[in-house]
Amino acid sequence: MRDWALMSAIDFTKGKNKIVTTGLEFPTIGQISHAQELRGAEIVHIPAEADNQLDIAKVAAAIDDKTVLVAVTHVCYRNGSMTDIKAIVDLAHSRGVPVLVDAYQSAGAIPINFEELGADFLVGGVLKYMLSCPGVGFMLVNKKNVMKAIPTMTGWFAARDIFAMDIMKYDPAIDARRFESGTPPIPSLYAAKAGLGLLLEVGLDNAWAHTNVLHNQMREGIISLGGKCATPAGVGFHAAMLAVKVTDEHAMVAAVAQDKVVISSRDSNIRICPHFYNNSEDIERLLASIAKNKHLLA
Amino acid sequence: MRDWALMSAIDFTKGKNKIVTTGLEFPTIGQISHAQELRGAEIVHIPAEADNQLDIAKVAAAIDDKTVLVAVTHVCYRNGSMTDIKAIVDLAHSRGVPVLVDAYQSAGAIPINFEELGADFLVGGVLKYMLSCPGVGFMLVNKKNVMKAIPTMTGWFAARDIFAMDIMKYDPAIDARRFESGTPPIPSLYAAKAGLGLLLEVGLDNAWAHTNVLHNQMREGIISLGGKCATPAGVGFHAAMLAVKVTDEHAMVAAVAQDKVVISSRDSNIRICPHFYNNSEDIERLLASIAKNKHLLA
Repeated sequence: MRDWALMSAIDFTKGKNKIVTTGLEFPTIGQISHAQELRGAEIVHIPAEADNQLDIAKVAAAIDDKTVLVAVTHVCYRNGSMTDIKAIVDLAHSRGVPVLVDAYQSAGAIPINFEELGADFLVGGVLKYMLSCPGVGFMLVNKKNVMKAIPTMTGWFAARDIFAMDIMKYDPAIDARRFESGTPPIPSLYAAKAGLGLLLEVGLDNAWAHTNVLHNQMREGIISLGGKCATPAGVGFHAAMLAVKVTDEHAMVAAVAQDKVVISSRDSNIRICPHFYNNSEDIERLLASIAKNKHLLA
Repeated sequence: MRDWALMSAIDFTKGKNKIVTTGLEFPTIGQISHAQELRGAEIVHIPAEADNQLDIAKVAAAIDDKTVLVAVTHVCYRNGSMTDIKAIVDLAHSRGVPVLVDAYQSAGAIPINFEELGADFLVGGVLKYMLSCPGVGFMLVNKKNVMKAIPTMTGWFAARDIFAMDIMKYDPAIDARRFESGTPPIPSLYAAKAGLGLLLEVGLDNAWAHTNVLHNQMREGIISLGGKCATPAGVGFHAAMLAVKVTDEHAMVAAVAQDKVVISSRDSNIRICPHFYNNSEDIERLLASIAKNKHLLA
């Protein structure tokens, strides 16, 4: 929703109409971007390479004088590939183009320093690694950009003074609250409060240090079973999720479920998402279950 | 949110740019409409008359060749005045202009026959008389208009095939689902299911027949105390809520709260909203409490 509000703040008819995005996006960013074609936008997708990594030079080459926004996901929901956001921000900013980061698949899994990234907008939700439920999303807005973006999609919670309840004019908040909409879904806020409280108690640095060990344990186990990982290896190239190539994703998910191991799948990969509440024994059980079904590994 | 999606489907730069709305709207419609000024819209508010009723002839006079939408609330959240939507729909349609009805303050309180109203779009939420909570809204869309309105604000739940998860194009659903957005706030859906289930069990016709009697009991009681109602009287001019003029709305709300009577206030009126779960004794208690504080009646 916050991405709606942001897109609605862009006028694509004033010379700059190009959104540069990637082949790694979640449907939300892809579909909202393409819907802007009706308002004059042109959408360019930079596909990932064979190893599921983005070639930053190709992103750079696509950013030109007509580019109004670069929209890039931090981690791909299909294969877990993580992109060097800072490199893209530096490139885009050198051409005066703002960057929107979709951190839905990384927020809560790995520490993110918004100030250091330097991105203009970062959206996410508490549904995944933030241990909560649908209904609560967030957008971080770089202070220097707040006053420049005026959404045309709004609601009374975005008003400068909510309780002015003025119907005769549009008077958005002077800060990032201008990207809000109407009354928030209150029940979800309670779940978010509990989930975020637990995550903060554990500490995001601790969670990631722990999960990264589990990620590497999984990766080594899969390789020793003769499997192939879709998620690139190495510091900076992945977050918590490990995607593994399989011949029949639904069969593998069902097979390990027999051993009470819960994973998901997408796009010919199984997706395994550990968090701080998992331990090394969990990973051993997972690997043992996959070993029993190794004929399904691609 | 659904009203966002609808507004986003309108191109205000193609000759028709005028939204005719009223002085009775909730902030949502007023503020979203005025935000469209950034996209070329012109907003005209028809104020209500001294008795809080809309003069339909004045609405009619405002609908011209440049009008792209008439947006009118069914019941005013501030004073409870109910508008003859069918009369406005007939007028607007005779000039080829679609009508958006905000039924947030009437849905669940009184029966609404969308087919008979003939309106093009009707939005509401389950928060109020539908006995639920924030997070769930709805939009009814007249079938003949679905294919004409293509939102530019969208999400994966609005896609023709949600699980296609195609990021390379915008392919909205062919029916009213195209006005959906992203993952819905699931916890709120459980509350909505329970609330709507209870309401359907009671029956909306039964609920309204009962509440209308309570409304009239309240009105007679207030008048006999020398008070003045802000809500117009008579069949078709009000729903469940009765708004009563007071000199200090917050003082009156606090005063009756001492007697464990819960009402709210807005705009120099107290707002009393009975539903099927109230009875005549509740109204007597309310009136007795107001009688004790009748110096606060305007």
